[in-house]
Amino acid sequence: MSLIVQKFGGSSVADAKRVFNVAGIVTDTYKEGNDVIVVVSAQGDTTDDLIEKANEINPHASKREMDMLLSSGEQISASLLAMAIEKLGLPVVSMTGWQAGITTDSNHSSARIRKINPERIKNEIDQKRIVIVTGFQGTSKYDNITTLGRGGSDTSAVALAAACHADLCEIYTDVDGVYTTDPRIVPEAKKLDEITFDEMLELASLGANVLHNRSVEMAKKYNVNLCVRSSLTRAEGTVVKEVVNMEKMMVRGVAKDCDVARISLVGIEDTPGKAFRIFSLLAKHNINVDIILQSIGRNNKKDISFTVSQTKIDEVVDLIKSNKDNIGFEDFSYTTAVSKVSIVGAGMVTNPGVAAKMFEALYEAQINIHMIATSEIKVSVLIDEGCEQKAVKVLHDKFELAL
Amino acid sequence: MSLIVQKFGGSSVADAKRVFNVAGIVTDTYKEGNDVIVVVSAQGDTTDDLIEKANEINPHASKREMDMLLSSGEQISASLLAMAIEKLGLPVVSMTGWQAGITTDSNHSSARIRKINPERIKNEIDQKRIVIVTGFQGTSKYDNITTLGRGGSDTSAVALAAACHADLCEIYTDVDGVYTTDPRIVPEAKKLDEITFDEMLELASLGANVLHNRSVEMAKKYNVNLCVRSSLTRAEGTVVKEVVNMEKMMVRGVAKDCDVARISLVGIEDTPGKAFRIFSLLAKHNINVDIILQSIGRNNKKDISFTVSQTKIDEVVDLIKSNKDNIGFEDFSYTTAVSKVSIVGAGMVTNPGVAAKMFEALYEAQINIHMIATSEIKVSVLIDEGCEQKAVKVLHDKFELAL
Repeated sequence: MSLIVQKFGGSSVADAKRVFNVAGIVTDTYKEGNDVIVVVSAQGDTTDDLIEKANEINPHASKREMDMLLSSGEQISASLLAMAIEKLGLPVVSMTGWQAGITTDSNHSSARIRKINPERIKNEIDQKRIVIVTGFQGTSKYDNITTLGRGGSDTSAVALAAACHADLCEIYTDVDGVYTTDPRIVPEAKKLDEITFDEMLELASLGANVLHNRSVEMAKKYNVNLCVRSSLTRAEGTVVKEVVNMEKMMVRGVAKDCDVARISLVGIEDTPGKAFRIFSLLAKHNINVDIILQSIGRNNKKDISFTVSQTKIDEVVDLIKSNKDNIGFEDFSYTTAVSKVSIVGAGMVTNPGVAAKMFEALYEAQINIHMIATSEIKVSVLIDEGCEQKAVKVLHDKFELAL
Repeated sequence: MSLIVQKFGGSSVADAKRVFNVAGIVTDTYKEGNDVIVVVSAQGDTTDDLIEKANEINPHASKREMDMLLSSGEQISASLLAMAIEKLGLPVVSMTGWQAGITTDSNHSSARIRKINPERIKNEIDQKRIVIVTGFQGTSKYDNITTLGRGGSDTSAVALAAACHADLCEIYTDVDGVYTTDPRIVPEAKKLDEITFDEMLELASLGANVLHNRSVEMAKKYNVNLCVRSSLTRAEGTVVKEVVNMEKMMVRGVAKDCDVARISLVGIEDTPGKAFRIFSLLAKHNINVDIILQSIGRNNKKDISFTVSQTKIDEVVDLIKSNKDNIGFEDFSYTTAVSKVSIVGAGMVTNPGVAAKMFEALYEAQINIHMIATSEIKVSVLIDEGCEQKAVKVLHDKFELAL
């Protein structure tokens, strides 16, 4: 008998039929003798519909009120799933973030979980109830409702698994695991049976769209057994863990991310503290920067380029314009017509030929590289928007990932 | 400077335009120097849509989960109204039932407010914020979300007015006050400037559809200054208070209620405790009984007839069938093809001719009377369904209410 956390995304509970499909998975797990905590996202397009409602009234509504609005979506899906499980004749109770004891910071719309008090959940589990918790949300210490930002339900699931010492945290999606790349682009893409936290982290943050990166970070930190599997096929899925059976594969997957915008500041005075000013400004406004490139100084001037999510580009441009004097630069430009493609693999750092092989494949396909960033287990390149599918294909071929 | 509670129903916030209309009323009141607490219902058909979603999954869902589901409706309307007020540039904060400190009993789907801890509301008011509270809901002592039942937002508003010692509680509807009868039936119906709590109570519970009866009871108990007015015209409305300028009018209004079902138990043994058994059974299942009639015993047998809301008829029939032996009766019958029409007026009890005049008017219109019930300030009759409009008209004429 184990305690299992199961997370289902919005498309898995989009309509009554799918809600019953999920209820089937949950109750089967329960009937096998396990305790089950379920985390659900809002149904299908609910969140988008609510955002549209808000935009109609006030496109600049406060984040606090947006969180109040959006959190209703999970409350609806959680209670509907509970009703389906009731229909199947099993004991169940649904809970909002505050009922589940999830406390976050006050950073509305992208809050981070601070603490989970699992007392009530444990109580309900002790009474042999299936517990359903609204994903994506919690409350701040001021008792305001917060949301964790898009994809935050994965984080809710992992955090609950950690707080309740669950034996396993299953993330159900509409794909049956983590692939060497997106199977919609490369049909030969292979499903991975196992992957390390670090590799998954790179794939997640690189836009593989399978797991939210914060959830993987948290799983790594608290050593939560994580598994990605399909709510449709019930196939085995991919296990994410600390160390995997390494085989000899160096490159484990290819990922693309189209939600990228590049900003370049030109002619910055080459004195200490400039980079600090730029990035502390962005950090203060809670803007995540991905790739950063700084040119080598020349004539006492240097250039700094960096990438952010496209959703943040307006905010970043405003910030940079209004802090021009403070930062000190001659000119700046930005574009959203770029994409990021990356190769990921834990064995990469020990094999210097990998990056070269990547650049070779892109050169052969006549794809121009604008920026390059490397870490111990990945190489990312920024290329023109529109080339990313081709890039993924040629890289998948080059590294023979289908074999 | 006063503290004013303003309640807006679902049709008042049905779309973005109406939300801004409400935001206009609220901010005007605030700009006149008042502190404002706003109570909102769910938008337009939201509650019905949610019930439909639930029925698709499980028509017999637990009331606990239904409350979890339905309470999301007010969370949506409250946050949207807050966003509209933000757009108008004024400080505002929306709150759910639990954030507003509203504690109820555990009677899901028709909970009663037990206590309000207004600490947070007072805090926000002290910071000069307009406070918006979700109507219709609270939390039980077990931290479960409860709803007060349909029309419960009126009760939320009055309870908050009492707990926060508000100077006035304004109930905004789509009519501009309380009329001598439904103006859609009798165009000559007259708006009343003032009405007593007791008269309003009879009109509300008799289906005048202006104020929820529990809200009037509570207003009377805590002496809350209540006012019914239109969110569309901003006309003066009707003030509900303890004592009104009585004039000489005995009958103040005519009300009809079509949501009536009659049940008759025939051939009950004429021994003590029979009525107790029937009605304690119904009370235990939280079923409100309206009119009760008991025939005079004969041959050691008696008959008992009573009325309930049509929504409860299936439950009542089931209860009576399964307790046939326990109650002890020969036969029973029921019908929903009945309506109730009533005349209300505080001066009525001192004028014995009023009831006779009512029966005369109905006789002249050839309307048959099935049951009669009287109180100090009203006379109600049960008639065939379909006759109620005609009955209202002839009674309104007979008592010259248009004059």
